[in-house]
Amino acid sequence: MSRRIRRTPYTDRVEQAGVRGFSVVNHMLLPKAFQATVEEDYWHLREHVQIWDVSCQRQVQITGPDAAVLVQWMTPRNIAKARVGDCFYIPIIDAQGGMINDPVMLKLAEDRFWLSIADSDVLLYAMGLALGRGLHVEVSEPDVSPLAVQGPKAEDLLAGLFGDHIRNIRFFKFGWIDFNNTRQLIARSGYSRQGGFEIYLQGSHLGHALWDAVWEAGQAHNITPGCPNLIERIEGGLLSYGNEFTRENTPFEIGHGKFCVTDGSIDYIGRAALQAIAATGVTREIRGVAFDGGPCPTCSKPWPVMVGARQVGQITSGIWSPRLRRNVGQSMIDRDFWKAGQEVTVHSQDGVVRAGEVVALPFA
Amino acid sequence: MSRRIRRTPYTDRVEQAGVRGFSVVNHMLLPKAFQATVEEDYWHLREHVQIWDVSCQRQVQITGPDAAVLVQWMTPRNIAKARVGDCFYIPIIDAQGGMINDPVMLKLAEDRFWLSIADSDVLLYAMGLALGRGLHVEVSEPDVSPLAVQGPKAEDLLAGLFGDHIRNIRFFKFGWIDFNNTRQLIARSGYSRQGGFEIYLQGSHLGHALWDAVWEAGQAHNITPGCPNLIERIEGGLLSYGNEFTRENTPFEIGHGKFCVTDGSIDYIGRAALQAIAATGVTREIRGVAFDGGPCPTCSKPWPVMVGARQVGQITSGIWSPRLRRNVGQSMIDRDFWKAGQEVTVHSQDGVVRAGEVVALPFA
Repeated sequence: MSRRIRRTPYTDRVEQAGVRGFSVVNHMLLPKAFQATVEEDYWHLREHVQIWDVSCQRQVQITGPDAAVLVQWMTPRNIAKARVGDCFYIPIIDAQGGMINDPVMLKLAEDRFWLSIADSDVLLYAMGLALGRGLHVEVSEPDVSPLAVQGPKAEDLLAGLFGDHIRNIRFFKFGWIDFNNTRQLIARSGYSRQGGFEIYLQGSHLGHALWDAVWEAGQAHNITPGCPNLIERIEGGLLSYGNEFTRENTPFEIGHGKFCVTDGSIDYIGRAALQAIAATGVTREIRGVAFDGGPCPTCSKPWPVMVGARQVGQITSGIWSPRLRRNVGQSMIDRDFWKAGQEVTVHSQDGVVRAGEVVALPFA
Repeated sequence: MSRRIRRTPYTDRVEQAGVRGFSVVNHMLLPKAFQATVEEDYWHLREHVQIWDVSCQRQVQITGPDAAVLVQWMTPRNIAKARVGDCFYIPIIDAQGGMINDPVMLKLAEDRFWLSIADSDVLLYAMGLALGRGLHVEVSEPDVSPLAVQGPKAEDLLAGLFGDHIRNIRFFKFGWIDFNNTRQLIARSGYSRQGGFEIYLQGSHLGHALWDAVWEAGQAHNITPGCPNLIERIEGGLLSYGNEFTRENTPFEIGHGKFCVTDGSIDYIGRAALQAIAATGVTREIRGVAFDGGPCPTCSKPWPVMVGARQVGQITSGIWSPRLRRNVGQSMIDRDFWKAGQEVTVHSQDGVVRAGEVVALPFA
């Protein structure tokens, strides 16, 4: 660890809570495991509540008279439909339609947006676009560090701590809470399917206090420290930029065609490319793969998904599901083979060939 | 480890060679340690030769009629002075003069450049600038993975393997070698002060073969697997983006004013900001700090450098030097205190206060 890989406002607390390892996202630490196993964490997340340091979801703040122009130029989704208080999932694509990132956009004002990003320097991309086109915007990374509270008991915990008004915040909307004489943004969102909130803490100096407040209030709800859970994420059909999709993939291939306006009514980078794909259809798309042969190893390189001698996809994330009693994975699958029930074999990196089938996402 | 953190063409070999840990640079694995200690590695690097997987130095390739226009726009250095075959160290700065990256530019042709980057997505920045301004360029990341051969015996090793013509390549120039019926770029460069070369392997499928060829030829020269060595780097005054400097710093503060044209003869992003700084002078600059108190701990957060009760800097990389029998560190130091010999105290994260002094870089 060096300064280059940035600590977060919560890292001290995460270490005190017994973190066993970190990953790196956006040049910042993301906790990867605590003392519980990933299976124990999975069950806990489904039944109770967890506190996650997701500061690595950095905010790219775009403000100024041309802010909406710049954000719209970066995404095929029509952001004019967003109202202040909305969270919009917006694919960001290059001129060929390839995915550059898939942030959640928070509309703070008509001329102020946060893009809560996956792992690539959207800040530099937005700066480049703005400088190149001479737009009247300011692009910056504010001192904002999201803390996620995930799981079915998250609402009760946070309502007790910050007030019942947070119960009225709907999914992918945000509101505000008072904390230590500051006003903080809270959204009903998060990288799990178990419900919960993300507090976009502004002011690193408040990190310890916020962690401690949530932790204390969480004692009555059986809170544990956690992090995005691979089993839950795969089952839930939540994709990860860099894993399931890269710049090699378009929004259509990851099931996000519904966010792409291709009727010519709005302009954005990559529009011609997306229109061409919309006309012809995609040749591959993300799917689940359920496969047997006992718990699979860790997937650190893509595993070929085969139909006979033909490779029809590659599993980019895979793990044993203790609930389904099968391995679960996510894979791009070629068009001729992507129907649910298609029999495949999975060639995991331990050399074992495992029988499996294509399934819809999310897993049942 | 997941697919998001990319393996390199050499990772299999690195694992076989007993790597003990990785860091992450440009979304890619960088070996951090092998079986030897950092001190053993330090002595070995100074006396023999090492093979380093530095694939994470990704290339941003800029080609096309406006290639030189785009590269010049990104840096205050006059790139018109570069000839084909030159490696140029070029600061890349934002509109305020803050460092975005500090790549080595390789001029492959009048209309073709590689930027061999430190840890930030220059690819996205360059794409944004090109799209915004409508430049006629193609910006891409080619399949190029540098393999460094560093140490005083590197030249003999590589001359034996690829021919004596590589001896004629001067520092920060590149030439070509034949390897397995391919033509590969080789530069006299690298992230150490012990001499050596970097082979910019084009074609990931050749990774194992290249590693094996260098390894075999290296047996006669006492080769070991290695990686950038923290002791050697600090002593040598080699800075690390994200550690010693960030977007908070200008090229002047890291001693690279000599690369910045501020007379108005060329135009680039951030010119006005640099001209203003050139007129007034900088208020802090990078220095070495030598300090006592026995081997210091690992520096994972900045350590205040104090003169009495006043903080005059912060050590961002520090380690025990077995050769100098003192701790060595790098720190920005405020102008009034940056003269060599200035007495300071270093407040390392173990709570120990250590006496030290400001020294020039590189360390003697």
